[in-house]
Order: sequence, then structure tokens, then C-alpha cells
Amino acid sequence: MLTTNPFDDDKLREECGIFGIWGAENASSFVALGLHALQHRGQEAAGIVSHDGLNYHAHRAMGHVAGNFDRDDIIRKLSGKVAIGHVRYSTTGETALRNVQPLFAELAEGGFAVAHNGNLSNAMTLRGALNRRGSIFQSTSDTEVIIHLVATSSYSSPLDRLTDALGQVEGAYSLLCLTPEGLVACRDPLGIRPLVMGKLGEATIFASETVALDVIGASYLRDVEPGELVIVNEGGIRSFRPFAKATPRPCIFEHVYFARPDSIVDGTSVYEVRKKIGAELAREALVEADLVVPVPDSGVPAALGYSQASGMPFELGIIRSHYVGRTFIQPSQDVRHLGVKLKHNANAALIQGKRVVLVDDSIVRGTTSVKIVQMMRDAGAREVHMRIASPPTKFSCFYGVDTPERSKLIASQMNVEKIARYINADSLAFISIDGLYRALGDQRNATAPQRCDACFTGEYPTTLTDCDVDGKPKPLSLVATR
Amino acid sequence: MLTTNPFDDDKLREECGIFGIWGAENASSFVALGLHALQHRGQEAAGIVSHDGLNYHAHRAMGHVAGNFDRDDIIRKLSGKVAIGHVRYSTTGETALRNVQPLFAELAEGGFAVAHNGNLSNAMTLRGALNRRGSIFQSTSDTEVIIHLVATSSYSSPLDRLTDALGQVEGAYSLLCLTPEGLVACRDPLGIRPLVMGKLGEATIFASETVALDVIGASYLRDVEPGELVIVNEGGIRSFRPFAKATPRPCIFEHVYFARPDSIVDGTSVYEVRKKIGAELAREALVEADLVVPVPDSGVPAALGYSQASGMPFELGIIRSHYVGRTFIQPSQDVRHLGVKLKHNANAALIQGKRVVLVDDSIVRGTTSVKIVQMMRDAGAREVHMRIASPPTKFSCFYGVDTPERSKLIASQMNVEKIARYINADSLAFISIDGLYRALGDQRNATAPQRCDACFTGEYPTTLTDCDVDGKPKPLSLVATR
Amino acid sequence: MLTTNPFDDDKLREECGIFGIWGAENASSFVALGLHALQHRGQEAAGIVSHDGLNYHAHRAMGHVAGNFDRDDIIRKLSGKVAIGHVRYSTTGETALRNVQPLFAELAEGGFAVAHNGNLSNAMTLRGALNRRGSIFQSTSDTEVIIHLVATSSYSSPLDRLTDALGQVEGAYSLLCLTPEGLVACRDPLGIRPLVMGKLGEATIFASETVALDVIGASYLRDVEPGELVIVNEGGIRSFRPFAKATPRPCIFEHVYFARPDSIVDGTSVYEVRKKIGAELAREALVEADLVVPVPDSGVPAALGYSQASGMPFELGIIRSHYVGRTFIQPSQDVRHLGVKLKHNANAALIQGKRVVLVDDSIVRGTTSVKIVQMMRDAGAREVHMRIASPPTKFSCFYGVDTPERSKLIASQMNVEKIARYINADSLAFISIDGLYRALGDQRNATAPQRCDACFTGEYPTTLTDCDVDGKPKPLSLVATR
Amino acid sequence: MLTTNPFDDDKLREECGIFGIWGAENASSFVALGLHALQHRGQEAAGIVSHDGLNYHAHRAMGHVAGNFDRDDIIRKLSGKVAIGHVRYSTTGETALRNVQPLFAELAEGGFAVAHNGNLSNAMTLRGALNRRGSIFQSTSDTEVIIHLVATSSYSSPLDRLTDALGQVEGAYSLLCLTPEGLVACRDPLGIRPLVMGKLGEATIFASETVALDVIGASYLRDVEPGELVIVNEGGIRSFRPFAKATPRPCIFEHVYFARPDSIVDGTSVYEVRKKIGAELAREALVEADLVVPVPDSGVPAALGYSQASGMPFELGIIRSHYVGRTFIQPSQDVRHLGVKLKHNANAALIQGKRVVLVDDSIVRGTTSVKIVQMMRDAGAREVHMRIASPPTKFSCFYGVDTPERSKLIASQMNVEKIARYINADSLAFISIDGLYRALGDQRNATAPQRCDACFTGEYPTTLTDCDVDGKPKPLSLVATR
Repeated sequence: MLTTNPFDDDKLREECGIFGIWGAENASSFVALGLHALQHRGQEAAGIVSHDGLNYHAHRAMGHVAGNFDRDDIIRKLSGKVAIGHVRYSTTGETALRNVQPLFAELAEGGFAVAHNGNLSNAMTLRGALNRRGSIFQSTSDTEVIIHLVATSSYSSPLDRLTDALGQVEGAYSLLCLTPEGLVACRDPLGIRPLVMGKLGEATIFASETVALDVIGASYLRDVEPGELVIVNEGGIRSFRPFAKATPRPCIFEHVYFARPDSIVDGTSVYEVRKKIGAELAREALVEADLVVPVPDSGVPAALGYSQASGMPFELGIIRSHYVGRTFIQPSQDVRHLGVKLKHNANAALIQGKRVVLVDDSIVRGTTSVKIVQMMRDAGAREVHMRIASPPTKFSCFYGVDTPERSKLIASQMNVEKIARYINADSLAFISIDGLYRALGDQRNATAPQRCDACFTGEYPTTLTDCDVDGKPKPLSLVATR
Repeated sequence: MLTTNPFDDDKLREECGIFGIWGAENASSFVALGLHALQHRGQEAAGIVSHDGLNYHAHRAMGHVAGNFDRDDIIRKLSGKVAIGHVRYSTTGETALRNVQPLFAELAEGGFAVAHNGNLSNAMTLRGALNRRGSIFQSTSDTEVIIHLVATSSYSSPLDRLTDALGQVEGAYSLLCLTPEGLVACRDPLGIRPLVMGKLGEATIFASETVALDVIGASYLRDVEPGELVIVNEGGIRSFRPFAKATPRPCIFEHVYFARPDSIVDGTSVYEVRKKIGAELAREALVEADLVVPVPDSGVPAALGYSQASGMPFELGIIRSHYVGRTFIQPSQDVRHLGVKLKHNANAALIQGKRVVLVDDSIVRGTTSVKIVQMMRDAGAREVHMRIASPPTKFSCFYGVDTPERSKLIASQMNVEKIARYINADSLAFISIDGLYRALGDQRNATAPQRCDACFTGEYPTTLTDCDVDGKPKPLSLVATR
Repeated sequence: MLTTNPFDDDKLREECGIFGIWGAENASSFVALGLHALQHRGQEAAGIVSHDGLNYHAHRAMGHVAGNFDRDDIIRKLSGKVAIGHVRYSTTGETALRNVQPLFAELAEGGFAVAHNGNLSNAMTLRGALNRRGSIFQSTSDTEVIIHLVATSSYSSPLDRLTDALGQVEGAYSLLCLTPEGLVACRDPLGIRPLVMGKLGEATIFASETVALDVIGASYLRDVEPGELVIVNEGGIRSFRPFAKATPRPCIFEHVYFARPDSIVDGTSVYEVRKKIGAELAREALVEADLVVPVPDSGVPAALGYSQASGMPFELGIIRSHYVGRTFIQPSQDVRHLGVKLKHNANAALIQGKRVVLVDDSIVRGTTSVKIVQMMRDAGAREVHMRIASPPTKFSCFYGVDTPERSKLIASQMNVEKIARYINADSLAFISIDGLYRALGDQRNATAPQRCDACFTGEYPTTLTDCDVDGKPKPLSLVATR
Repeated sequence: MLTTNPFDDDKLREECGIFGIWGAENASSFVALGLHALQHRGQEAAGIVSHDGLNYHAHRAMGHVAGNFDRDDIIRKLSGKVAIGHVRYSTTGETALRNVQPLFAELAEGGFAVAHNGNLSNAMTLRGALNRRGSIFQSTSDTEVIIHLVATSSYSSPLDRLTDALGQVEGAYSLLCLTPEGLVACRDPLGIRPLVMGKLGEATIFASETVALDVIGASYLRDVEPGELVIVNEGGIRSFRPFAKATPRPCIFEHVYFARPDSIVDGTSVYEVRKKIGAELAREALVEADLVVPVPDSGVPAALGYSQASGMPFELGIIRSHYVGRTFIQPSQDVRHLGVKLKHNANAALIQGKRVVLVDDSIVRGTTSVKIVQMMRDAGAREVHMRIASPPTKFSCFYGVDTPERSKLIASQMNVEKIARYINADSLAFISIDGLYRALGDQRNATAPQRCDACFTGEYPTTLTDCDVDGKPKPLSLVATR
């Protein structure tokens, strides 16, 4: 498995990034660059579908964007002035490639391609109904439900059929669709997953994050708003609001970990927010020590914020190998332990005899934290204090983030004190939920939170039609043979 | 491209072979052997679907059976006591693997797999209607129509749904289906393509040709009859005749070229029939010469028949390379010319100064015949006489045989005399259509022929719903975007 | 393993074929075609080295010529007007590619490439001496000894160094070498392995068999004579005879099995010789029967000869699969038994109730014969008589032919009667050694045989320096660590 | 090409890392881990040779250690309690794998394997002489000279032969050899390249850097000293000093860039030295600004030192993509420009309106510096000051570091002022050579420098037998044909 983000074995993972462009020669070459910049949102598979005015062209591959979509022959095949793309985390098994997006189907009214970031919380229920009606599913992806709803809609225009389909789904969806009427971008009424809009010359661009605009030299226009559907075609750009209005609840974890530090999310710099979280953490949970050491690389901005607010020096106490692009890590729990040693090494000459504040962005299973603390102690640290730039992660996400089942989340099983003992830290503190909102410039509205913070609070913004809060599927009336 | 059948660049090609077994441990290992024996019916791709009582397992691959389905890991994965398989000619392009059979879908009532030999002559028309109704097609295969018709049938049992579906299709189909009710074998009312039934211990087997029974040591029971549907399951074997009765018209070309000489087709030995065709040809078109030389390998039995009937010695005047498994041949017309040289060589020491009768099974485009005659002359032949073991091939087949478009068939453009000049033969003769029937022990009924001989006579046994006799598609009411 | 020659599991195997050309644009493209025509002499690996006047270019690959040397990029890389090539049987293990010929080395006086058909019978002894002197071997090939002898020779001109080197080796060698002085072709004093010389326009060609000349449209000039060394360069063609004169002993088995039937070996048509062997066999061992059935494909000419001499009809009683290019066969003894079934099938409709004469070219281990006889009996043969177109193979070959160790040769363990019982034939006869010479137009000189027939008689034409007659290595003074 | 070290297109590159172990079960699995930790020293190819007491086992592969040497089957094949390994930068072309080390040969006295870090400055000259004597080279590696010198030595014991061979070579060599007498580690008399010795239980380990000891949990014993030869076998560890004594000159650039920051080189922490270089740089070339921004990742320690010494805040002004493991970069100059954009992005929200001090470790060609300065300006930086943690790189290295030819080194063509204009920086300063020695705790001895600093000063510690200072080969008496 390819992974270069250190310690990400014990992180939540964004499941997708999407990118689309209308109106540029060799549209797919821009999509490839944009997806490369979004690679951190999904590293297992990637795909692009383009349209040349007459035909659709698709290519999907397991693995990174680079190595698959930087090949001349591939990009040349994906001809046309409009294209959408998708990067994806975790697609496994024999039929893997069938689940790689963008999904495409030839419907009676023409081709239809869709790239989806998010997760539908009533997909299994809808799938059962469509199946009984005679629709044949090719993938295990929730996204395919959207295509079949479009195909079987009783409306006639592609846009009406899509709107009809989206009216039936629940959950999180930032979508890019190629339809005979144009490129459609849409964000669910709660705006759970991000989607921004940009411009490069005459071309219109949509992307999960602003870094994807940066990489192609495009400028940021605005966010696609929660509940908004934008269509771009020869007639220009039109915006619709086909859904019942709802109070937006964008994902707060994008700021904590998912988004790249150089992205602007919801109008604020991710890097600045993370530094502020670190500073807030220094206020909430100061401890006297000699060094502030980030857990690389995601803990760096919060550690800088902690260091600057506390006056204690920021130092690289953990050195990560530059060459973890291909790793020895196997997917079994066993070998993961060895993984830390391969990917990181204590800077022992620095640590020896010192009191260390370790700053990390989150604790999921806790397995990595155990090893990092031990690594500090083995290197001679006198004290090891752990500070976490997010509240305890207690609940699973059902909106497009890969979370272990709830019982594997250490914070759903232990309180902070027990976790501290478990990871063998001299002290442990998480930022408070209110502190996190403060770093974002908000005061949390406890009765109607301004963000989706369900992974910390359990307050899910939608009904969980397909499963209960522990992720167990609700019984279906029909059990498939397979 | 893998091809070991010499000169087959200029042959009609059977498009498929199928094999299925019910009731044997490691059913898929038998299917692999059976498909290997049927490899001559389709060399581009192969697939097997098995059922282990609980789950379906599928593997499909481009290329030969050997090299793909003789691997332990593959066969072990395809577990279960029932399995069906398919070999296929010519699947191209990006979505190639999606067209490789058996096709499989999870329907509301359980899994459904189908392997199809033949071609539906109203597939495009049915596909348009299903598409408008909301069915999404994944392949360009006519066979997928059957699955969608089953999925959307208003009947409730799998068998009723399949019967309902088959009631709507036209053309040629020998089918093997895995359904929740059992293994189903079915042959269209005209019985255009073959299908036989065999037994090995307790197991029941279906195959396109008897050689596939031989290879696994099974015994031949009987043909699946035209219009018959056989279902095998724990309850035993049941036979149905769900279709309106029709006079059978099995394909005559199976005897001329498609079937292996060691197969028994319609109760007669293919080898014996081909020798009789050669003998008949000697009666119809004797010429005085020194040697009877077969065009290897398909011309050998007819040449032996010609030699024995005429008393002229049978000799190997053309030696073929044993190592054409992987060939230099590229798909362009240009390099094909060079191909003959690589694959065959004149036995010049034998040919020098002799009068030669060349015996071949058929002439399609004529390109190869030109080169063989020239090769004989270059080797010093004094006279070259060509004798063909089938009537002139003047019409395309729409029932599962890969035919060039009609204008490329030399016999649709020239009479025999002109062809003789074109290929530079001292004389040329084709067996008559009546002579061909005589070799089969029949007298051709001109008003209701006992066989499908449309490639020679243009008398198609079904309506050609999707296209006209030249293969041009009839206009559809809807033109797809792609 | 790729193999398309039926039943060749139980045949002796020629280990090499060589081809070289001087003076043609894109010389390597001719070499590729020539090697393709010689593929029957070695199917495991192939290589070409070319020289463009300035640089040498080399490509070697495991597998067939086709698939490796019909690629534009490869051939374009192998630029120049002179090139030599090699096909090889059986190279295994990690260091496999190092053993693939032509071998190449940059010597002090320039590049040196060599392609070798044959086997040196004192290679191990020479290797030990060179090793102790400081020469480092890269392959396990006996041929590498030649390169090191050239490199360490005290003579100064490349040709003198080569002559010096060849003066020290014993055994069989038909060689093609690229040297700074030109293309050198050489055949050992006994001429054990064949080597012919041809012409195409201004270009000079050397090849193991005439079929390789045919395939590129070249004409046959003459054999390179035993003990002759020919050098071709800008100055023309010169011939030398640097070795002590010896009575030639060319390999008799080339006529029996190795050479292609359309080749001319020692001035006689291989096809004609094989037919004469069959006729001779009919005279020596006639039996009354209904059919003469060849064991395909190598038994065909002898069977035709037997049929024509005896008046009994020649029939295809065994049908071989066209698609054995890639086979299910694994290298274990076990699965080989199953192999026969996959590759061949009895033509049961023909065999049923008949008395059959089976004609095969040789019996090595006997394993295949057992199965063929059984296959005939299973198909209903009333009697099965086996006739073999060579004398009993009782001894191993040490001159470039892959032979099982002597104890595996059935004829070294049993007399004819016992073998007949072992293979369960109603009768069995081998042609006599004198009959075989008669078919070649000779009378065998028992004191000084005109051919190398050691595999039948044990009369080896050279000293066996490295091993004894059973193939066991003689003790060396130095045992290598590895 | 795999590369994860950002901006390393414009860095000098260490050409090798070596690792060996004596006396551990599954020695090769430790070597694999050790090489993984040394991956930054060579990313193009890797190899391991083990010895199991009887046989040698070798595996070499293009690409990273991970992906090649973390496979069970490979490691299991490399059995034994002693093994050596090598990572290598830049091996290209057809014969690539032949150059991948450890090299191995079977000599008359047993197997011999060698892994070499460094470069011999008289290799071409020695090769010519060996070649004329009859030695045949298989690679283009300078290291192969050592093997042939050993093979042709007139001494009898392996160790004597090796000592004899090393007495003839000049230049840089840290070596690990497997010989029939044991594992030999050796460092050239000047100690140009590093080599350390460690212990894990009973096992003895040698490695290029201490991080490779850390990763397997081994403890550091001492450096192998310049001019020392250590042999480990069943009899224990013995040390020899077979060469004439010389004043050591270890490479100073290891501290600047090559070594990992968590390594201890020459007894000092690389991280601490780099921070001190940054502090020294702040003293030598302070400038008033708002932010100190490291060029990631190699500029980070020096930037921290600069920040702490100057009191200006350290900030991540450039964000690098985590996913540059596989990059879009093609080897042409053109696309490299685009490369910076893909690998890094300005943290524009931070940079906008600020005065920025950029800290980098070195400038080689200057191409990347141009782009980074421009990136800062595009992000709105008010001023951009560049500080470099090494003196101007003006001379090529001939001791195992990949350097562009001298004319490509920007500092050999321009003075500091001109470079500043070329890269468009408001100011530019390099640390002085004396400042660099100060950071290392030394005062540079101008007449006999304590380090090899030839890349900055042109004072090469050895004769350059094969070429002149511009890297042009001196004329040889013999010009090879190829």
C-alpha cells in the first residue's frame, strides 16, 4: 500500500477528493494535476471521465494519480474540454475497479458520469428497492444508487432527473456530474463535505480544496454553497437551490486534519486555524517543559502555535524517513507496530534528559501514541506530555470518512486519565470542543451546532437510515443470496 | 494475438464455446479442462463462474484458457460443485473485460450468471427499450439483454423469469445459466448453435462439442434439442419445451470448419463427413495431377478423402511451423501477407516439377489463397489446382460467427472463374451445396433446408431485426450520445 | 512453459539454433525471422547481438522469438548491418538471463559475441583452469569458456585468438561470432551440429537449417564444412581450415526428429528421408492392419512412407489440439500423464474396431507411448502395433541435445519385447541402425560410422573429458564453494 | 522515478549506502530494514547477498528497498546468518541490473561479494590494464575492478588477495565484503565516506549511518576508522591497518545534507550541527524580516537555528505535498519547472505582505531557487532573503557523489551577487567555509584541512588519475571498440 503520511495508520481518513473543469483544452490534464494536489484525500484509486462534445472517455486505476495519470497516452485518450475526476481511499477485492469513480453509465438520454465525495446514509435501503424493480448494480458503491435513480426517474430532462434523484438521498454529497446538459456541481443541504469553485481564463473549476486551484494557477471564486446545484455549459453558469433549506453543518474535522494546511476552508486558512488550536491548547493545558515536539507531519502547525503561545522552543524531536512512499507496512495489526520504527526515529541527541511536550492532531485507536511515547522514553526523555489538537474522537463518521468501528475508538472506551495511563504519558490533554470552535472564531451553539462535530459529540446531523450509531446495519426485508 | 490455427486469418471464426457442470467437487477445474478443449471456438478471452451453495465466484481474463485457468490460485478461488464457463473470440478496447462471459448480476431474487454461444438478432432493439425504461447496460454484449429481461420480468420464479426473457429474443442461443433454482441449459428453437449433454459419475455436463466431454473422461448422453430447456438441481434433471415448435436449422458450417474433427456433431463424425466432402469433391471436380496437398491443418481430412477417392497420393507439400503460438502477425492487412511465409513453408523438394491439387475448406477473402498458390509456384509446381470443401461463402452470418462485412467476401464479388484468375490457380472448384448435403447423408430440401446454410445461400432462418442483409444497422428511433 | 510440439515431453530436444547475417540493412530484423523459423530447435530463450560499425547492441529474453523479437522498439535498438542470434532450450533459475546467448564481452581488442550450437565435452575442465588463473565466469554456460580462452590468448589478432581458443576445446560446436575482424562462422572438425550458408542479395547468411533461409527469401549456397572457419567482412568471404583433419560425423538424429521436414540437411530432403525410413520400416516390420496412424506431428512423414509402401490407408486417428501453445503441463511427472489427454484425442469414430499401426519417430522414456496405446485401446482399437522410425535410444548425448540421464532411457533398461509389454502394444518394432543408414542412402561403416549415432550405439566420436558415459561428472581437483 | 525528498532535483546526491551483519538468524531481514533506513543515500536500486555457510544467495532490484525487499519470498531465499546490502543512486540503461551491488563472483578460492560506497579515482586506468590481461568486465561499475584485482592477485588467502587489491586502488571506498574467511569491512585511508560499527546481541553490524543501527534496535560501538580493515568470523573480530597512514579527510557534506538529521556522524549530532550552521549564518548574515521559512525538508534544522539565534519566528511558508512518492517529474529540464508547483505550494495566507528569510542547505544549479523565490513573490512576500547553509558549491565530487558537470554548478559560473540577481532574491548569503568548520567545532586548517571540502574549495585529497578537475577523462592508450 502506498502511503507517505506518517502515522496515518492511526488517523481518520478522508475518503474522497473531486475535481472538475469546464471549458479548457485538454481538460483532463488539469484534472490530473488537480487530483494530484488532492491526493491526501484518497490514495487508493483515481479516475477521470472526459467529454469531447461527442464521446465520453474514461480511465480508472488503482494507485496514485502520479504513475497513472501523468502518462501522455492516458491523458491524450481522455480528450475534450470538460472532465471530472476522483481520488478514493480504500477500494478492495476482485471487483475493485468497478468501484473506482467517476462512475459512468449510458442512459437513454445520453451519458452520465458522477464523482462523489461523501456518503449516503440511506443507500442500502434505496438499493434494495431499486434492485427489486429490476435495476442491476455493478458496484458496491453507494454512489451507484444515484445513477439508477437518475436512470429510472420519470422526469425527462437530465437536470430534472438528477434533481429528482438527489431529492431521495440522505447524507453527505459533494458531487460533480457530466450530463448531456453540462457539468453539474452540487453540495448537499448541510454542506457536510467541502466544494469550492474557481476560474482559470474562461474555464470554470470545481474542487474539494483550494490547493487544487493553486496547483493549476486558477483563482478561487467562492464555495459552492450547501444545498446549491450549479450547472455550467455553453449557456454560462446557472445556480439552483432545489432542496428544502437547512442550517449548514460543514465538517469540523477538515480543519483539524483532513485539509491541507495551505488550503482555505470556509474562508479561513487551515494553517492559521491549526496554529490557533495549538495556542488555545497552550492556554487550556499548559505544562512546563523543555521542548515542544510535533508528531510529524500533521502535528506541526499546532505544535508551532503551542510553542509560540507558551514560549517553549519548537524542535524536531522525531525524524521521519523521507522514503516511506512505499512502506513495509502490511495491513495486519501485528506489523503495524514495527511500522513506527521504520517511519520515524527519535532525535535522541536532542531528547536525552529533556521534558517533552508532544503535540498531535488526534488520537483514534491509540496504538501509535503508545509507540511514540515509548520512543521518547527510549531516547531518554525525562517527562513526556501529550497534547491533542482535537477533542476525544468517540463516534464513527457515516459521511464519507473512514472510521474504525466505534469500539475500536479508544476515547469511546476510556476517559482521558485512562488513555494517559494506556499510552504511558506523564500528562495528556485534548482541546475542548468549545476551545476548538474558539480557534475557528466561533462560539459553539450547543442546541444547533454550526459544524458537523458528530465524531466528537455523537450529534449526527441526519437520520442514519441504513445503520445504528454503532455502525451495525439495520435488518433489511430482503437478504441477497450473495 | 495468440493464434495457432494456420491460415485462420482468412477463415470464418466461431465466436464462442460454452461448458457447464453440475454436481462435481471442484467443478471449475473440469470447466477449465472443458474450455481448453473448446479453445478453437474462441481464443481471445475466457471466464468461469462457480457457485458454492452460498456464494458465486467469478474470474475472467483476456487470452487463452491455459495460462489463465490452469493456475491453482484461480481454480481454488472458483470453489463449488457447479460452474459454467465460456471462451470468446474478439473482445476489444478499454471495456473489454466487461464483455467477457459468463456475465453475472445480483438480481433481487439472487445471483444470475449466463454463458451464451450465438447471437441475438434483435438485441439492439430490445436494448433500446430496456434503456428507456431505466436499465443500465455495462457491456456492449448482446447477451446482457437477457439479464436485464430477467431482472425486469414480472414473473416471480427465476425459471419463469428466464423463460419470459427468452420468449422475447430472436436469433441463435445456446445458453448455460446459473440461477438460484439450478443450472439451466437451453438451445434456441432452431438449434442453430450446438449443445451436448454428458455424464461423469453423478455429475451432469453441458458443452458445445463432444471433445470437451472426452477431455474430462465423460460420456456423451445426447444433444440438448432445439427449443429445449434443461434444468439440473438437487431434485434431478428436468426438461422443458417452453417455445413454439419450429423446424430445426443447425449450422452446416460446424461440419465444414468450426468443430474439431474428433467431435461428433448431430450424431455424425466430423472427420468422416470432411473425408466424404473430399470424396464428393473428387467426384464433382476431378483433375489429373501428381499430388494431393492439404492446406494445413483444416484441409487435411478433405484432402485425404480426395486422395483416396481419386487414387492420387496425399503428401505434405506445405509444412507449417510448430511455433506459431505467438505470431509476428499484426492486425494490419500489410503484415498479414508476410504472415504466410512465417507460418508455412513449401516442401520444395517434393513440389518441384509436380502438378498439385491443393485442398482447402473454404475461401473467405481470398487473400491467403493467393499466397498459397504463389508459394506452390515459387517451389516449382508445374500446375496448381485448388479444390474447396464448401460452396462459395457469399453472405454474412448473424448467428454468432465472425464474418467480414459482405463486400469483403470474395465470392460475393466474383464468380468462380474470376476467383480462379485472382488467386492464379490453373483450376478452381467449390463443392456444390447439394454435394455438401450429400456428404452429410441428406438431400437438400430447397424450400425448407434442413440446416442453416445462409452463408452460402442467403436464406436466413430468422428475421434480421437489427440490421439488413449487408449488416448495416436499421435506423433506431433513439440515437445514443455515445 | 511454452510448447506446441505435441508429445515432445517424451522427445530428445535439440538445444539450440543459430542464425547470422552480414551486410543487410536492419540485419537484426532478418535474424528475428530466421530465429522464428528455427524456433523448434530451442523454445526457452532467444537473443540477438548486432553491430552498427561502432557499437554492439544486445537483447536477450526468456520465451519465444515471437512476442520478444517482433517488437519494433527492440528491433530498432538492435541496429546495424551485421547481427547474430540464438534460440535456446532450457535455461532455468535466477541467473537464467545470463545464460541466454549470444554471449557478449568487451575484450581489450574490442567487442566479442558468440552464439553456439552444440556442447563442449571438456568445458568443466577448462573452466577450472581459467578460474584458478583469475578469470571470472558470469554464466554456467559451457560457451563462456570460449570467450575467456579468447580473452586470455597470447595471440594478438581476434581471429588468431579465436583459433587458439577453439584449438583447446573438444566436442560439438557450430559457432557464429561477431569480432572486430568480421562475422565468423565455424563448425567443429567432426561437423556434429549442422550449419549452412546462404545469400540474399549482397548479404551472407549462416543458419542451423535451410528453412531459416527460406523464410527470409534467401538462397542456399552450401554447408559450412566440418572443421571449416569462414570469416565475412568488407574484404569479402574467406575460408580457413585451422584444425587437424578428421572424418566428419554429423548427427543422424537431425534426420530422424530435430530438423524441420522442409529443411535440406546434408544435401537431402528431410521429408523424403523420413518417408524412406517409413518405407524401410514397412519392409523390415510389416504387419497386417486396417489403418496407419501417425503420432502427430513428427510421425507423419514416416507414417506416409509406411502407408505408401504397405498399401494400408493413412488416417488421422489421433487429433491434436490446435491450442497447445500455452499448456496446462507442469514440469512434474504426475501432470504429464494428464497432458496427453489435453493435447490429443483419439478419433474414436475412426478407430473403433480397427487394427491400427501407430508410427512414431522415437521412444525416449516410453511414458507417452504407454498413453497413446491406451488411448487407442480406449477408443476401441482391436489391435495396436507400434512402429518406430529410429533404433532404440540407449545412450545420452553430450553434444548439445537434451537427453534424460541414461537410466531414464527405456531402451537402456529393457529389450524390445519388454518395451512392447510395457507400453501394452500387440507388436513393436524399431528400424535397424542399418535400415536407418539405408534410408539415408548409405551403408553403415561399422568401424568408422559416417554419422554420429552414439545415442543408438554408444560409439561417441570424442573423448568425454568432463564425465563418463552415464553423465556422472569426473572428480575435479578443485571443488567450488558454491 | 521514485523520489520523495522535495527539491532534490537540485541537490547533490549521495550515491550509496551499505549495511552488513554477521551472526544473526535471517541476517537478510535485518539488512533489508537497515537499507530502508539508508534509502536517502540511494533510491534507484538495491541489493542483498547472503551466505548460509554453504551457498551464497543474491537478489538485486531496481527501485526502493520497500516493495522489493519486504517480500517474504525474497527474504526467505536470502537465507543465512551473514549478509551485506547496498542501496544505489542512478543506474540506467539496459545493463542496469548488472551494475546493482553487491557485486558477486565465484572465484577459484570461493565466493566473493562486495558492496561499495565511494568512488575509485583510478578505476578506468586499472580496468584498462586488467582488460588487456584477459579479465572480462560485466558491469560499468568501478567496483568491479576490485573483484578482478582480487581474482588475479598472486596471494593465496582471500584476505591477502583483498588487501593486495585495495593497495592498488585510489579514491573513496567504504566496503563490505563477504569472503570465505568472513565478513570484511574496510574504509579507505582518508576515510572519505563514513562507516560505523554496531552490536545487536551477538551480532556485529556495519552501516553507513547510525540511523540504520537505530532501526533494528542495535547499539553503536564505534566508527570503522580511516584505513582500518575489520574482519568478523567465527573466530571473533580482528582489526588490521594494512595501508600507509594518512591524515583523515571525511566528507564535510555529510553534515550539510547527505546524512539524516537523526544520525551521529563523526561523533556529533547532525541535527545539532545543522542548527549551529543556521545560528552561525544568522551571525554572519543577519537580515531584518518577519518570518524565517525553511525550504522543506532539508532546510528545516538550519532555519530553526537561524530563527532561534535571530529571534524571528519560524513558520511553514512552503507546504510540501505528502504525495510526491511518485511524481509527475520527467527527466527533461522543461517539466522540472512544473515540478516545483506540484511538490510545494506557498502558504499564501501566511506570506502575504511579509518579509521572508528563506533558508536552504545548498544551491547546485540554482534552478529550484529561482522558482522558490518566485513562489514567495507570487504569494505576496514583500521581501525575499535567501540564506544558504553551506558555502558555494563550485567543484565536482569524484568520491561517490553525483554532481553535475562543473559548468552546470551555478557558483562556478557566477559570484554571489550575480546569483542573487539570477534567483531574484533581495539578498543572498552563503555561510563561509570557516563558519561551516566552526559549526562543526573546528577551526579550518587551511594548509591541511581536516575534512574533504573539495566541492567548495577544489582541494581534492587524492590524485585524479582518470580525469581532470572538470571531469573530462584523460586520454587512454587504448580506445575500446564500444
